[in-house]
Amino acid sequence: MNMNIQSIIERLREIMDDETLNQLKEELNGYHVADLADIFQELKPDERLRCFKLLEVEKAADLMEYLPPQMQVELLSDIDENLASQILTQLPHDAAADVLGDMEEDESETYLDKLPHKFSEEVRELLTYNENTAGGIMNPVVLTVNSDMSVQDVLNHIRIKAEKDNMELYYVYVTDKQNHLLGVVSLRKLLTSPIMQKVEDIMISDIVKLHVDDYSDYIIDEFMKYQYNALPVVDLYNRLKGMITWDDVHDLFEEETTEEIYQSSGISTEVVDEDEILSGNIFNAIRARTPWLFITLIGEFIAVNVSNHFNHTIDILPVVAIFMPLLAGLGGNIGTQSITLMVRGLSTGQVTLSSAMHYLLRETFIGLAIGSFFGILVTCVTWGWQHNIELGAIVGLAMAINMTMATIIGTFTPFALKAIKVDPAVASGPVIATTIDVLGLAIYFTLVSTYLVKVI
Amino acid sequence: MNMNIQSIIERLREIMDDETLNQLKEELNGYHVADLADIFQELKPDERLRCFKLLEVEKAADLMEYLPPQMQVELLSDIDENLASQILTQLPHDAAADVLGDMEEDESETYLDKLPHKFSEEVRELLTYNENTAGGIMNPVVLTVNSDMSVQDVLNHIRIKAEKDNMELYYVYVTDKQNHLLGVVSLRKLLTSPIMQKVEDIMISDIVKLHVDDYSDYIIDEFMKYQYNALPVVDLYNRLKGMITWDDVHDLFEEETTEEIYQSSGISTEVVDEDEILSGNIFNAIRARTPWLFITLIGEFIAVNVSNHFNHTIDILPVVAIFMPLLAGLGGNIGTQSITLMVRGLSTGQVTLSSAMHYLLRETFIGLAIGSFFGILVTCVTWGWQHNIELGAIVGLAMAINMTMATIIGTFTPFALKAIKVDPAVASGPVIATTIDVLGLAIYFTLVSTYLVKVI
Repeated sequence: MNMNIQSIIERLREIMDDETLNQLKEELNGYHVADLADIFQELKPDERLRCFKLLEVEKAADLMEYLPPQMQVELLSDIDENLASQILTQLPHDAAADVLGDMEEDESETYLDKLPHKFSEEVRELLTYNENTAGGIMNPVVLTVNSDMSVQDVLNHIRIKAEKDNMELYYVYVTDKQNHLLGVVSLRKLLTSPIMQKVEDIMISDIVKLHVDDYSDYIIDEFMKYQYNALPVVDLYNRLKGMITWDDVHDLFEEETTEEIYQSSGISTEVVDEDEILSGNIFNAIRARTPWLFITLIGEFIAVNVSNHFNHTIDILPVVAIFMPLLAGLGGNIGTQSITLMVRGLSTGQVTLSSAMHYLLRETFIGLAIGSFFGILVTCVTWGWQHNIELGAIVGLAMAINMTMATIIGTFTPFALKAIKVDPAVASGPVIATTIDVLGLAIYFTLVSTYLVKVI
Repeated sequence: MNMNIQSIIERLREIMDDETLNQLKEELNGYHVADLADIFQELKPDERLRCFKLLEVEKAADLMEYLPPQMQVELLSDIDENLASQILTQLPHDAAADVLGDMEEDESETYLDKLPHKFSEEVRELLTYNENTAGGIMNPVVLTVNSDMSVQDVLNHIRIKAEKDNMELYYVYVTDKQNHLLGVVSLRKLLTSPIMQKVEDIMISDIVKLHVDDYSDYIIDEFMKYQYNALPVVDLYNRLKGMITWDDVHDLFEEETTEEIYQSSGISTEVVDEDEILSGNIFNAIRARTPWLFITLIGEFIAVNVSNHFNHTIDILPVVAIFMPLLAGLGGNIGTQSITLMVRGLSTGQVTLSSAMHYLLRETFIGLAIGSFFGILVTCVTWGWQHNIELGAIVGLAMAINMTMATIIGTFTPFALKAIKVDPAVASGPVIATTIDVLGLAIYFTLVSTYLVKVI
């Protein structure tokens, strides 16, 4: 399945130029939809549309789920409305709701009116949930059985239902007549149990389940923790409303990771949706990036003020000024390392709040060790270069203190934020880098004005 | 399943103090293993050991897979060797190989000798593969059937085999007598096909498969792309050797993400294993953190040299020096944002090499827009504060140029690295921040010495 996308695309373009539609059609329908998705990513919009029109309806529907949301909406809007409705009907309910939810409301209404009544009713219900909650993510089509059915009954039931409704099948859920969730049976258990056994004897009734209002970060945590392929979703009254499968969670997980990475470098995902920042409206991108830059600006003006406070020192010995970027750069760097380790550790669970003291001590030692080493190095280099051992010693000492302090601040802050229930990922990067700049310069200039300017 | 771990732990400690072993045993065996794993994380080592000994063998084996590797090794080494062997035998082969692979060689040999012959042979074979390749990750126990079996035959076969071997079951793999992989049938397809149909008529023969030597990043990409629950692993001759399931991949994915995040803040995961950095030997942690700091040091010394080149300018107008951290801080910040967006986009596939020009233009515009805004802001603040409009204008202009340049460098570099097939995540953060420092200071001091020092 290794394929060189560029060469495939060149071949497709040749076929398109030759106008040999049948050949193009055959070629396109031969690919796995995951490969087609990669190919579509690389095609130009008009080429994409031409190719999409040539796909069989089922293939087109399968492909939809592998394409980014904007591309789904774009393609559906550009093709014939009846064909679009056919494709939508072939989609799992949650996927159909996702596409329709991304459209303008009047556009999605047009489609909903064209869809089979039962299907559109169910999709409409999904659209009422917040798209970041279990209700908005789940697929409402779930295979349910009664607790007094035998294994054989269930197998027969699956044969009829699962084929007809194009159902995802990992577990069979056991419900009562009012659709209350009673238990769950895995396909594996079903296939390895005696066929006359009652479902209630083999089902697990101590079920891990999600609530329709659970948010995506909680859903991710539950999946990561229990490692099931699918979890049932219930409402307030324990009535089964749908299920979420691991591939839904995988998408959530990737989004969550992207947000974590964005936030750590000061890109705000609170006001602007995460996938808008890279490819959406450019002013949204600017809005997402400006807030932390602004905070950095304020912080750095404080740093400027600190330096200005020592302007007489710079007047007397201007050479001390040129070491400022060196101190700020290395302090910021080692501090960022500490923040990254703690934020990531807290996020994966490798680091817990109760081990804060252990990590503080460990990081302080690391900061002290690396800081001392770099301090000595800087002292030697500066001494050799400026032929001034006092200057070298002061710069080196400031470096060591600065780097140690940076690891302490970088380690302490995420724990402190976590303790007051603020997401450690949010406030970390830029703020701490600025704090380290301010304190680092204060320490440096204090050392210089205490020891160096007097010496001379 | 929402539980307050702290209160559970307090209760467990009370029971332990009371020495009421039976109650403790009952309590512990009642938890889901995923919950137990959370509880074990919080217990002290001696409490952990006491609790572990009270678990039923099957529960203990289930629990192992949810615990971090060091804790698995620690617990097994501290209990009776016979009990440890029993637990190991209950583990899936790949999990057993993982634990044994993490032990000292003589220790793992002791256990391997105690295990049932067939099991230990298979585990030994797994241990011959590199732990980062499909061979080292796969589970060798796979349910295989012949192509001429009927659906009913397969179902009967599953009933016997899957129960006995405690097999993971997502797909049934079809092989010939020499164990060559011919096709795959999903459980769903199996359950919805007529029972007399031949397997060869319902199997998919155009299979997505992995090779024993495939590396973990390739494995992750294949799973993410095709979104299957499990993929078969074959050797050079297309003989089926095992399968990898999505929960194995989830662990790989989390590791990969951690590495990506570490690298972006200059923590090297090349020389030191990623999970060693946070909790392993402290000197390994120092080794992982020093290389990029060292490169930053060299870079910042270049920056110091640039400033030193303009020392006459600082002599004449010392106040210009105090704005250095402001320029470096904001340039570094907006540059890091651009790097982060591109590196992450390239990693998720949202950004491709062929769209490099689009993103370069987009980011340049964003840099210019935000840079101009911040430049004007800085000009006004500096003017009002220092009562020197020329100084304000120069600092503001330097700021605008610096921020624009930072976005361009931050956007261009990941693409350039990708084009020459170097992982963009590796070289990004610290190097670029330093480059921006050097160029930013050069531009600033050139502006100052060209316009400002002459003016006065």
